[in-house]
Amino acid sequence: MERIRIGICGYGNLGKGVETVIDKNNDMELVAIATRRNPKEVACQIQKNVSVISMEELENWKGRIDVMILCGGSATDLPKQTPMMVKNFNVVDSFDTHKNIPEHFKNVNEVAKLGGKIGVISSGWDPGAFSINRVYADAFLPDGTSYTFWGKGVSQGHSDAIRRIEGVKDARQYTIPIEDAVNRVRNGENPELKTREKHLRECYVVVEDGVDKAKIEKEIKEMPNYFADYDTTVHFISEEELKREHAGLPHGGSVLHSAQTGSGNKQVIEYSLKLDSNPEFTASILLAYARAAYRMNKNGDTGAKTVLDIPPALLSMKSQEELLKMV
Amino acid sequence: MERIRIGICGYGNLGKGVETVIDKNNDMELVAIATRRNPKEVACQIQKNVSVISMEELENWKGRIDVMILCGGSATDLPKQTPMMVKNFNVVDSFDTHKNIPEHFKNVNEVAKLGGKIGVISSGWDPGAFSINRVYADAFLPDGTSYTFWGKGVSQGHSDAIRRIEGVKDARQYTIPIEDAVNRVRNGENPELKTREKHLRECYVVVEDGVDKAKIEKEIKEMPNYFADYDTTVHFISEEELKREHAGLPHGGSVLHSAQTGSGNKQVIEYSLKLDSNPEFTASILLAYARAAYRMNKNGDTGAKTVLDIPPALLSMKSQEELLKMV
Repeated sequence: MERIRIGICGYGNLGKGVETVIDKNNDMELVAIATRRNPKEVACQIQKNVSVISMEELENWKGRIDVMILCGGSATDLPKQTPMMVKNFNVVDSFDTHKNIPEHFKNVNEVAKLGGKIGVISSGWDPGAFSINRVYADAFLPDGTSYTFWGKGVSQGHSDAIRRIEGVKDARQYTIPIEDAVNRVRNGENPELKTREKHLRECYVVVEDGVDKAKIEKEIKEMPNYFADYDTTVHFISEEELKREHAGLPHGGSVLHSAQTGSGNKQVIEYSLKLDSNPEFTASILLAYARAAYRMNKNGDTGAKTVLDIPPALLSMKSQEELLKMV
Repeated sequence: MERIRIGICGYGNLGKGVETVIDKNNDMELVAIATRRNPKEVACQIQKNVSVISMEELENWKGRIDVMILCGGSATDLPKQTPMMVKNFNVVDSFDTHKNIPEHFKNVNEVAKLGGKIGVISSGWDPGAFSINRVYADAFLPDGTSYTFWGKGVSQGHSDAIRRIEGVKDARQYTIPIEDAVNRVRNGENPELKTREKHLRECYVVVEDGVDKAKIEKEIKEMPNYFADYDTTVHFISEEELKREHAGLPHGGSVLHSAQTGSGNKQVIEYSLKLDSNPEFTASILLAYARAAYRMNKNGDTGAKTVLDIPPALLSMKSQEELLKMV
């Protein structure tokens, strides 16, 4: 069997996640990992026989990689990397700055069309699996209301924001959906919920010796955008406890959609994820969309795609015959 | 705006459901309802200005109906009707005899290709929304285990089976998922579950005067395929109580999929429905797929399709611009 040759671009949590889960996909093989660090100093964690290369070398791999998984960050990496890479490769990214998705789509689409490649953007679980479910639910029940809850899980962005405070050595922030709010939506009550009524924020913080904890706590709780609009709890713990109890990257959440049909019949759709490892699950989804990108491009299709443009069957390793049995 | 002209073929619970929910779809209009009864004796329940016609007249409506929603039963109606109708119309059906879906697909595909039409088969929620979720989950976590639970809800097939017993005037059967089993799956325990361990069956039965209730209860509980493999409870109630307490057709259920990634990280995906009206929800989904069938056919595509072949975006009334904001 001809395997889909996969490249990883960016070797952080997500890139390592792709490396970890790729073996579950018998139709794929990992051929290269591109890193910004010195390739000689980077050891692959799991996969042997994989070339570790610099970002600059990637161009020479044109024709030897079928789909490149872009594992950089949405703030500064992907807006440049995805359009650049899609010139030479089919690509999949997890661009997650929701408000900039239309612009990112446009930029990727132009280059992908020119290069004759497919660029799947904003894959993963939110955006990604959650987006699909928001759109399906809205199409099934067009005048309903959708709610997205996140957590319980670690928000990397919020953890980073705490780490930037002077006197903080390390931090882990959990986003926690408020169970009462979730249950009201589940019961089809269709409530109006303020930011504060949907999620709590819980912070575990390691500080330098001798700092003013009360001041740091205040600074966290009043941080605009990140914490000011939420009920936030701050726990100061030791470095050892942080490593022991908060080393994982669990996450999850729910998309709920409710509407009434006919004479007051409540209809509720819920899609939920409970993930022990956020990066490994995100990586798993990126690989499913890599398969779709490969197939679409083989079939002559080019341009930018989102998860909304791709039929479920294209993601699956199973044959048409096997899929008909799963309908 | 040009509206999609919809026909209903079969005016039972599901056909009436389509009539009830179609107004939520601003891009559609209902133009005709075909019934097996005498059209003169059938009054539309909700929609005015809709032609009620006989099945035989349908042929004359070629070119005046864009998508026909087939609302017949899977046992005897749809295996004949769908291939027959797809000669002249784009069609959507909710064929739900899982083991015969491959054959039904083949039959519909042949005629649809010849007639230049699209035939979406096995739409609805199971098969349908549940099928999509089984395939997405399996593509995201390829070596996981999937579980489907149904209920709490009314099973029409099981209610009918009880009604066929001598001495029974009416009956309503609820399928109830066993909460403990659902929770074990939710926790990623990956249990092996026998039929009896997944669902209970609860029956509300109205009998003729003077019959042997104990005999009827035994006959229900020992009925092969339907009840013998389940823990079944039978309640004998009055006709009035049945009408008062059990008139609705609620249903729902969950598709759960769990797998491990990396070093023992549990990942759990759950899709759940809680429906006050099964026929109105099924009808809502059929209309979303009618939109997709219309668009695919406009775009030159023909043949049989399942929900697995259709990208989410094609189901939505929203523009590409609006959809990008939902990603």
